[in-house]
Amino acid sequence: MSVDLSPFTSLDEFERHALEVLPAMPRDYYRSGAWAEVTLRENRAAWERLRIWYRVMRDVSDRSTRAEVMGRSAAMPVCVAPTALQRMAHPDGELATARASAAAGVPMILSSLSSTSVEDVRAAATAVDPAARTWMQMYIGRDRGMVRALAQRAHAAGCDALVLTVDTPTWGIRERDIRNHFRVPEGMRIVHLERPGGPTGHAGSGIHEALSWTIDASLTWRDFEWLRDSTPLPVLLKGVCRAEDAARGVELGAQGILVSNHGGRQLDGAPATVDALPHCVDAVAGRVPVLVDGGVRRGTDVLRALALGAQAVCVGRPILWGLATAGEPGVAKVLALLQHEFDVTLALAGCSGVDDATADLLRP
Amino acid sequence: MSVDLSPFTSLDEFERHALEVLPAMPRDYYRSGAWAEVTLRENRAAWERLRIWYRVMRDVSDRSTRAEVMGRSAAMPVCVAPTALQRMAHPDGELATARASAAAGVPMILSSLSSTSVEDVRAAATAVDPAARTWMQMYIGRDRGMVRALAQRAHAAGCDALVLTVDTPTWGIRERDIRNHFRVPEGMRIVHLERPGGPTGHAGSGIHEALSWTIDASLTWRDFEWLRDSTPLPVLLKGVCRAEDAARGVELGAQGILVSNHGGRQLDGAPATVDALPHCVDAVAGRVPVLVDGGVRRGTDVLRALALGAQAVCVGRPILWGLATAGEPGVAKVLALLQHEFDVTLALAGCSGVDDATADLLRP
Amino acid sequence: MSVDLSPFTSLDEFERHALEVLPAMPRDYYRSGAWAEVTLRENRAAWERLRIWYRVMRDVSDRSTRAEVMGRSAAMPVCVAPTALQRMAHPDGELATARASAAAGVPMILSSLSSTSVEDVRAAATAVDPAARTWMQMYIGRDRGMVRALAQRAHAAGCDALVLTVDTPTWGIRERDIRNHFRVPEGMRIVHLERPGGPTGHAGSGIHEALSWTIDASLTWRDFEWLRDSTPLPVLLKGVCRAEDAARGVELGAQGILVSNHGGRQLDGAPATVDALPHCVDAVAGRVPVLVDGGVRRGTDVLRALALGAQAVCVGRPILWGLATAGEPGVAKVLALLQHEFDVTLALAGCSGVDDATADLLRP
Amino acid sequence: MSVDLSPFTSLDEFERHALEVLPAMPRDYYRSGAWAEVTLRENRAAWERLRIWYRVMRDVSDRSTRAEVMGRSAAMPVCVAPTALQRMAHPDGELATARASAAAGVPMILSSLSSTSVEDVRAAATAVDPAARTWMQMYIGRDRGMVRALAQRAHAAGCDALVLTVDTPTWGIRERDIRNHFRVPEGMRIVHLERPGGPTGHAGSGIHEALSWTIDASLTWRDFEWLRDSTPLPVLLKGVCRAEDAARGVELGAQGILVSNHGGRQLDGAPATVDALPHCVDAVAGRVPVLVDGGVRRGTDVLRALALGAQAVCVGRPILWGLATAGEPGVAKVLALLQHEFDVTLALAGCSGVDDATADLLRP
Repeated sequence: MSVDLSPFTSLDEFERHALEVLPAMPRDYYRSGAWAEVTLRENRAAWERLRIWYRVMRDVSDRSTRAEVMGRSAAMPVCVAPTALQRMAHPDGELATARASAAAGVPMILSSLSSTSVEDVRAAATAVDPAARTWMQMYIGRDRGMVRALAQRAHAAGCDALVLTVDTPTWGIRERDIRNHFRVPEGMRIVHLERPGGPTGHAGSGIHEALSWTIDASLTWRDFEWLRDSTPLPVLLKGVCRAEDAARGVELGAQGILVSNHGGRQLDGAPATVDALPHCVDAVAGRVPVLVDGGVRRGTDVLRALALGAQAVCVGRPILWGLATAGEPGVAKVLALLQHEFDVTLALAGCSGVDDATADLLRP
Repeated sequence: MSVDLSPFTSLDEFERHALEVLPAMPRDYYRSGAWAEVTLRENRAAWERLRIWYRVMRDVSDRSTRAEVMGRSAAMPVCVAPTALQRMAHPDGELATARASAAAGVPMILSSLSSTSVEDVRAAATAVDPAARTWMQMYIGRDRGMVRALAQRAHAAGCDALVLTVDTPTWGIRERDIRNHFRVPEGMRIVHLERPGGPTGHAGSGIHEALSWTIDASLTWRDFEWLRDSTPLPVLLKGVCRAEDAARGVELGAQGILVSNHGGRQLDGAPATVDALPHCVDAVAGRVPVLVDGGVRRGTDVLRALALGAQAVCVGRPILWGLATAGEPGVAKVLALLQHEFDVTLALAGCSGVDDATADLLRP
Repeated sequence: MSVDLSPFTSLDEFERHALEVLPAMPRDYYRSGAWAEVTLRENRAAWERLRIWYRVMRDVSDRSTRAEVMGRSAAMPVCVAPTALQRMAHPDGELATARASAAAGVPMILSSLSSTSVEDVRAAATAVDPAARTWMQMYIGRDRGMVRALAQRAHAAGCDALVLTVDTPTWGIRERDIRNHFRVPEGMRIVHLERPGGPTGHAGSGIHEALSWTIDASLTWRDFEWLRDSTPLPVLLKGVCRAEDAARGVELGAQGILVSNHGGRQLDGAPATVDALPHCVDAVAGRVPVLVDGGVRRGTDVLRALALGAQAVCVGRPILWGLATAGEPGVAKVLALLQHEFDVTLALAGCSGVDDATADLLRP
Repeated sequence: MSVDLSPFTSLDEFERHALEVLPAMPRDYYRSGAWAEVTLRENRAAWERLRIWYRVMRDVSDRSTRAEVMGRSAAMPVCVAPTALQRMAHPDGELATARASAAAGVPMILSSLSSTSVEDVRAAATAVDPAARTWMQMYIGRDRGMVRALAQRAHAAGCDALVLTVDTPTWGIRERDIRNHFRVPEGMRIVHLERPGGPTGHAGSGIHEALSWTIDASLTWRDFEWLRDSTPLPVLLKGVCRAEDAARGVELGAQGILVSNHGGRQLDGAPATVDALPHCVDAVAGRVPVLVDGGVRRGTDVLRALALGAQAVCVGRPILWGLATAGEPGVAKVLALLQHEFDVTLALAGCSGVDDATADLLRP
């Protein structure tokens, strides 16, 4: 692709461009929220409502966006959120994202619904940076053996964390996908979840039908304990909004809490993640890191998340828009814009680094 | 009708389609609220403002949408709200609604302004399911003998409750009806309210003129007591917004309270029903079931209503949109979509059934 | 004019029609608020925000819209607010308004900037109803003798109150008037304020220039006392928003307080009158009647005003829209619609009359 | 230019006209806020939300807009805010602004990024009025010698204050400028900041690149102390939003606090200045004057600012719109409109002058 990326000045512009160039089926799959998309819109709007009471006359000349994220240093407090089937956005798919994330120095969370194997993704990432970090997103599906096998495979491939999605006892309803008869495109496969005996690729219409067996409505905390005990890797819980669930997860050994509503794709009407974040931060009380995703589009949002007690944010759709626009360089520019915005935000808010992003920035 | 229903993914789409295909007079009669339609819009908007703080990691694999509704089990906590003259929407009118409701396992409230007799409606319903439930909506009009006769007729036909509308001392003003010179269409009759000596069908312009004698501005609680004593059936009160009125009704023997503002068709400026609901629930204090209608369009709304203390919701206009779109299959799909959405909502909120839909779901 | 008024179902429709048929200069003069028209919009929006918690099962069959307004009974708690130069809207101007108001049984407040003399207006009103009430709106201009003469003239003509506007130390700035080079049209005169020595009619551009001498920025409460002592008529104060000013006026002998911001035409940014009303009601504490104008467009607004403690409302622009649409029958229909809406509102709120419009209707 | 200014009735109209006539590059440079322009919009909207509870029956015939501004009397409590490169708006640039400001009797804050020298600006201003006041806006850039030299030059040229901008450790990101490849136009120079050894005029794209050396991210309060000690002129701090920063500045010798967010051009998400103002006023506690800029467009805003405790407001973009529309007469009309609006606002609020603009005007 020979798209000139120099006029792209924000993540929003990548979105606008990607919505123009993507075919309807992947475009709608990526952008949709559940039902009336109330939560999808709120995720974004709730960040914008928070005012940043910046400080002046602090020496911010020697500043850094670096942050500890889940026990290791990252170039900024940002992770790439897991999104499915990235080859629908660009032929290089998850490989492009892996390379760009590694180059940018941020962890990539690989979706278990990826169109590229974790081994290939790890190889691509470590070729760029041997210290590149990949976390494996997991569902606990009905076939526990397959779950355990994937966890082991992720570990073997060098992932350094698992991210267990807990907001998906069933798939959320995204109406455009139904109308589009969404299915995994010809020639693409959900590589980690193929069952012996048959391809998953052409199994019908809608991710609901195609992938119902990859999740399990019977999950309880015991299943989390089982996964925790099945892997040497730390496990984060993704998809929590309630304080009590965050606390319970931590008590049972979760090594991190990712406050998320699945990008507004599961329960429409769920609170904006930034509104849920302080409740979860309070409940976790510093025992493990709290991360947040959903509607993060600006460097200012990263600062807001930190000021509310998050250790890092995750960005999902913007990565896809970068990928759809220009493959790896598109993802790289998305991450570079976000880092640049965060760096400028730090400076303008009077912060030299993430430790200065304290709660008083949001309070008059 | 050969409308392909498979692309219909929400009640809103039935609305869009029905507004396109219906002639102006019934379309406007159905969709209008009173005056500036502030309450009509608020009914919907107020549901959407409520955030659902879903729970995770509850086993929701063995879940059910079934609910007790007014003393008996229904397939979901949903009733078909009474709407007038359904044959304006489709030639099969109330018969289609009765069959689809019976098949869906939910009570149908038959409007006393129906274009089909209660006996025919009951026959259609019980042909589908002998246990089908029909409730007769009633006004207490000036001719009390006629009211008593209709109550008896409903009882004889097998209805298992009466629903007395109490928000209609006079008809609300719906401006589109006035401009359309609304009248009961040629060949259609308000079958239950024909007076000896003349048809009601062509009595003038506007429901106000045509039907002024079917209501009575002099009603007081004594009239409710009279109706209560005139029938062996339980009587629900429909149209209450104030706590004191809900409490008074219960004290005088109402067997259920339906919080309603008549779909925004009576007093424009009345509170959204979801805002009135908690006040009424508090006042009723568990003595009888509280139901609510007005703006319910999503399975998430059903959960919200339950979390606020309602036993069930009623849906009116969406039924008409289903009817107008495709007759009985249209109504069936509307109810199926709502049930499916409610089922998914239960799952995503961490509920196995209606008993789990507790107040904490709406509180952070 | 042969406009068919039967399709006009609300005051808003008169507005839409009048804005279409009026020439730009009077149209803009009538509709404009000051500067950015924030207060103009808020006047309307603030009414709509108030929810009416209607009562049910009250006998409202024997109800009445009649109300005591400033010591005498009116057909409804509504007055015609003073508006200038009504002959710009229709050749019959204030005469049409006077006849329609008299026929409707409501007081008319005649603007001192009228295009018809108070004597002619009184003659027209009393020809319809000998008991018709007219109140004379006054400014205290620089020429006190002229003010006193007009007060005496109003008294002699049979007016039963004066309404002193106190929000006009200088004219508000209405930008459309400036751009339109607003002036009193050829052949029309501000009949009460002609000075010996010259016509006012063609004095320049803008009401500001044309009429600066009719007001006086030096007014204080002493001037009110002077006017009070110059006339046997009761004097109301129009244009108050602050509690302390309402209280002061009453202490100094005002016989009524009209909470008004001059229809948003004076200080843009002033509070909506309905927001100011409760403060003034509290301050007046029942000593004299409190009236309110500004954004009243619906019968529900009349009820809201009463529930907040007002004795009556005044409507201004809708009268002009009726006048522009169809002269006297237009005004008559505007008043009839408002009365009908108020009557229906009473019924639907469970009120038999204005005494039932108590504060609890606005509180859950 | 022969634009007829008589139809211009508000600052907003100057904006509309200027946006039409300006070439894209300066137009976008002037109007842009940072990133998504949330703060830019909030700056304006927050003023409009404040209601003015005007007083009546105060003698306002002998009123004045005059105000003490930073120790000397000004024609109104308004200053011209510093804006860069005014020759992009009109060939006369800062000279036109200086003449119009001097004629209007208000201080002009000259941007250190001006396209005209402070000496020429002072000459133009004092030719109109020998008592004309000019304040020099300053950044503390990396080359402290240059800063000191400019401070001395400003003093020598007759400026009577320095205004140190403290919200600019780095330049805010204005996306339109990036897309427009903003640069200082050919033939124009940032005259005060030319370094020996090279022009600044054509240094690249974007003010960020062109001017990065003119600011310094390492600034701390010590640098303010250094500047304070480097000049006999009083120094104001511009760009503060936090109470603690305002207080600190005063403690260290700032002679005034200008609550500003750089017109929404630095940190998007910063609070509206009118929301920050009361916090700073409280913190300063009367020790020095507090000024405010950002979104001031109406005379009512001036009153609001005073009622919140500001001594004066500054207006920036409207000056540019006046300049772009008609050069000096355009600026003069902008200032005349604002003064007229403020004068009318005073009258309508019941104030004879700035001392009457007390806090109770904003409280019911």
